[in-house]
Amino acid sequence: MPQLDKSSRLYKLRHSCSHALAQAVLQMFPEAKLGFGPPIEHGFYYDFDLPRTLIPEDLAILEEKMRAIFKEKQTFVRRDEPVQKAIEFLKKAGQPYKIDLVEGWMKDGAKTVSFYENVDASGKAKFVDLCEGNHVENLGEIKVFKLLHTAGAYWRGSEKNPMLQRIYGTCFENKKELDEYLHQIEEAKKRDHRKLGKELKLFAFSDYVGPGLPLWLPNGTVLVEELEKLAKETERKAGYLQVRTPHIAKEIMYKTSGHLPYYAGSMFPPMVMEEEDGRKETYYLRAMNCPHHHQIYASEPRSYRDLPLRLAEYGTVYRYEKSGELFGLMRVRMLSMNDAHIYCTEEQFESEFRAVNDMYLNYFKLFDFTKYVMRFSTHDPKELGKKYMDNAELWIKTEDMVRKVLVASKINFVEIPNEAAFYGPKIDVQVWSSIGREFTIATNQVDFAVPPRFGLVYNDKDGKEKTPLVIHRAPLGTHERFIGFLIEHYGGAFPLWLAPVQIRILPVSDLYLEYAHTIEEILQGEGYRVEVDDSAEGLGKKIRNAELMKIPYMVVVGEKEQAAQTINVRDYATKKQEVLKVKEFLGKLK
Amino acid sequence: MPQLDKSSRLYKLRHSCSHALAQAVLQMFPEAKLGFGPPIEHGFYYDFDLPRTLIPEDLAILEEKMRAIFKEKQTFVRRDEPVQKAIEFLKKAGQPYKIDLVEGWMKDGAKTVSFYENVDASGKAKFVDLCEGNHVENLGEIKVFKLLHTAGAYWRGSEKNPMLQRIYGTCFENKKELDEYLHQIEEAKKRDHRKLGKELKLFAFSDYVGPGLPLWLPNGTVLVEELEKLAKETERKAGYLQVRTPHIAKEIMYKTSGHLPYYAGSMFPPMVMEEEDGRKETYYLRAMNCPHHHQIYASEPRSYRDLPLRLAEYGTVYRYEKSGELFGLMRVRMLSMNDAHIYCTEEQFESEFRAVNDMYLNYFKLFDFTKYVMRFSTHDPKELGKKYMDNAELWIKTEDMVRKVLVASKINFVEIPNEAAFYGPKIDVQVWSSIGREFTIATNQVDFAVPPRFGLVYNDKDGKEKTPLVIHRAPLGTHERFIGFLIEHYGGAFPLWLAPVQIRILPVSDLYLEYAHTIEEILQGEGYRVEVDDSAEGLGKKIRNAELMKIPYMVVVGEKEQAAQTINVRDYATKKQEVLKVKEFLGKLK
Repeated sequence: MPQLDKSSRLYKLRHSCSHALAQAVLQMFPEAKLGFGPPIEHGFYYDFDLPRTLIPEDLAILEEKMRAIFKEKQTFVRRDEPVQKAIEFLKKAGQPYKIDLVEGWMKDGAKTVSFYENVDASGKAKFVDLCEGNHVENLGEIKVFKLLHTAGAYWRGSEKNPMLQRIYGTCFENKKELDEYLHQIEEAKKRDHRKLGKELKLFAFSDYVGPGLPLWLPNGTVLVEELEKLAKETERKAGYLQVRTPHIAKEIMYKTSGHLPYYAGSMFPPMVMEEEDGRKETYYLRAMNCPHHHQIYASEPRSYRDLPLRLAEYGTVYRYEKSGELFGLMRVRMLSMNDAHIYCTEEQFESEFRAVNDMYLNYFKLFDFTKYVMRFSTHDPKELGKKYMDNAELWIKTEDMVRKVLVASKINFVEIPNEAAFYGPKIDVQVWSSIGREFTIATNQVDFAVPPRFGLVYNDKDGKEKTPLVIHRAPLGTHERFIGFLIEHYGGAFPLWLAPVQIRILPVSDLYLEYAHTIEEILQGEGYRVEVDDSAEGLGKKIRNAELMKIPYMVVVGEKEQAAQTINVRDYATKKQEVLKVKEFLGKLK
Repeated sequence: MPQLDKSSRLYKLRHSCSHALAQAVLQMFPEAKLGFGPPIEHGFYYDFDLPRTLIPEDLAILEEKMRAIFKEKQTFVRRDEPVQKAIEFLKKAGQPYKIDLVEGWMKDGAKTVSFYENVDASGKAKFVDLCEGNHVENLGEIKVFKLLHTAGAYWRGSEKNPMLQRIYGTCFENKKELDEYLHQIEEAKKRDHRKLGKELKLFAFSDYVGPGLPLWLPNGTVLVEELEKLAKETERKAGYLQVRTPHIAKEIMYKTSGHLPYYAGSMFPPMVMEEEDGRKETYYLRAMNCPHHHQIYASEPRSYRDLPLRLAEYGTVYRYEKSGELFGLMRVRMLSMNDAHIYCTEEQFESEFRAVNDMYLNYFKLFDFTKYVMRFSTHDPKELGKKYMDNAELWIKTEDMVRKVLVASKINFVEIPNEAAFYGPKIDVQVWSSIGREFTIATNQVDFAVPPRFGLVYNDKDGKEKTPLVIHRAPLGTHERFIGFLIEHYGGAFPLWLAPVQIRILPVSDLYLEYAHTIEEILQGEGYRVEVDDSAEGLGKKIRNAELMKIPYMVVVGEKEQAAQTINVRDYATKKQEVLKVKEFLGKLK
């Protein structure tokens, strides 16, 4: 998540606004204890320990109080205090959480701390807060703000601490920006993938199966399988070979790859199998596909003539995430991805990497992603042999090639030093949905560390054994997350090719059911996903139901249509209606 | 595996032949200790403890001795002995394994045992064996036999006992049958799915991944994906809905389904996860797909209008098999299947079951299975409430419906009483490969026990909640086993639609590489799986390599073809060659 620049106007506005919020809360509840109150990406929040639970109406009252405070044009006055004196002051003020903060800093060696006091035009102190600074000159500068909602939050994020009440708010430089943001929130609520997932019957969770483990319902399975078809077709044209590998492997696999023991906390727990001879064998659910693909690479001797070898799999991996951090399709424990590993020589690397990038760009176009950025993480030469694999030459060479491709392909990228993976430079792809929310969807990595661990080699032209470079890539990321993103991006109204049901036929009454099924058969025969609404509902209700399901085309058939052998087509996107021959409709669909 | 009828001529011949083998072995090694020597499905074997390891040449010598024995026309004379006297006799004869047998029977309460003595025409005793009988009148009746090979075998099948040497042989009523059988063995060796799997680069195993866990190489993945495509297309037309579900679930799932604890030995060991609040949650890799599908059924309220609901998934399950029993693709620990569950009312059951059967028959036709049998296992009324779920009416009703459909569809079936599953009648499908070997490939079951355990219901017309019947079906079985079977069935020469590589283009030399790639692009554009042999080999070697890979069409291009814009097509199956325009070839392919 991008952070606000501390010296920015927006940071200062929001930071100041949170002070005003705390001041207003103290007016309403003088016994309130204050927690954290920072600016955040889209606004600010402040945590409070209050004598009662806030209700939504409280926010309007607090906003009123804040407006009154802003009118006073209070300024900020800084005061530095030795830590002991600060603690005494906070004790008197009855602010135990702030004392906890100061004691924490003391442990880290702090000798003094700073307070900021709000002073009104008459010089009267109105509010003081433990704070490191960066505010507006005076609170009168805040013109555009809004308190949004409340939520529970443990002090310092730990369940062992008391639960405080967090008030979220936001603040912008002008009303247009605030309105845009509020609109985005409203849209995001309507487009929430969990809400739409239920309404459109895309996926479900089950207490029998477990948290973070989505079950794809028939409608959602269409999305998964259309994406899979798209990915496989794209990869077929790009010279990839599909493989399929088990979802489990022996412990030795992950010890060799280096994932165990370091990565054990992110893996599912081991399965200890007792073989019939009493020997114990430990198996793991895989958390990544690469080691399995390396086994396929190693299944026969490879020569330079076999490279590049591009192995692709719609593979599933399992990762342990804390149950409290699971979130719909966005944070899950089972991740299915159109993964691939490209084994190539150093000479082939640049063109392979370029092809991968082109594939990304084509996907962006197909899905209407108009805003994206690639975060190119590179190594730091000082950390070679520590944070990074010790091969200075290969780091520089591959990073140069990656950079060259990014520039030549006019890709929007930022370079982030000292954030590469241990085994090579990497690229994280961030895209923005149609309502402007940002998601990280894919990762693209170079790997020159793991192939030698598995002894992967090829016989080069000169007869010498060499180690291939490996590019890891998954341009659609995991299909769980990607579909979650697409649900918001399209607001559930998927483009025709992706829509779970493409056409719903609505007979005006049961009299036209037979005609409806005739039309259904024709459209189905052409490969479309069609259904007939044979419910006992009236036409009005049938139309509303189809609209709720955001089905691209409704086809209404009644007496007129049957007599004229036509259909009445309603387009969900344009809301236009037209009477067509079936053949004409088919032409339109293509 | 079907067993020989004990009163059959073949049983008597083979049983007698194994006595003759033991007699011959004792002539060769008087110190030999005898183990078991039974007739089996395709012949017989006898286990021996010998002073040295047998070599293949020994079998010819033993056959010679057996022929001499047959000439003596020895008869079988039965002799019953009290167990104690039998043991004394065997001690004197130095036959410890036979003593072990008698002692075993004693424990089971036997008072006497029987011996059979071979006596020649002069009345002289030549050989005696502990035996329960069923032989030919005299050994002269054996005309057609052959010793096949040797193998190691633990006494009583336990690794704790000594390893004996097993001699396999066979015996038929006439030479034609023996020759057919020997041909089948030879063919089966050539068509061995493990041998062809390696040669055709279909699948591999890895010590890092584990035994019984095949990795599908690119060629094998084509087979899997073509079968998957076929199954999904077949199911789409038959009104199935595809779903996708996780490969794991919480313990409660399998306790509710009734699989735990009884089935635990066949499941992978549990994964015990510690959640962040310290609570422990146990997960299992699934051993069956049904409970997951039941969760999808339960994900929304169902009405009679929703039925039949046919949920299909290309799902993967994991089962523990002893590592010693794993065998190529035939016995694995990971099983992927085109599984489906049909939820229906009692009224719908018959037509649904008929449709399932029709699907089976269509698959048989498609894959050229000319011989099959369905084994219909029914309940025994005496075992209701014990071995079988206690619902007499439903058992009779569903079995009657199943029987009616089998008869009406003129399906070749046998009814096997008292072998149903606990929860309903079942059908096992057995097919014979093109070389006459038998495989069980699929199971089809009725289930009226598990749906109520998960509380699955639908709202019927009369407003009452009722429990649906469930049909479990997987007509292609597991794709591991099915592909193993197809490899033998087709001898690796897959039909065009299934072939991993459909067309290989062989340029006579590098001069025609460009023309070869032009042809490749045209054929690829039409959706065919094509590759160009751009190796440095001569044409002869290229042709041999393509034949070894059993590629349906070779396309040779050289000077003549390039000049005339034609191709020289060689058909693997017919070995015919013809010069064609690409367009003509495409017409032929369709």
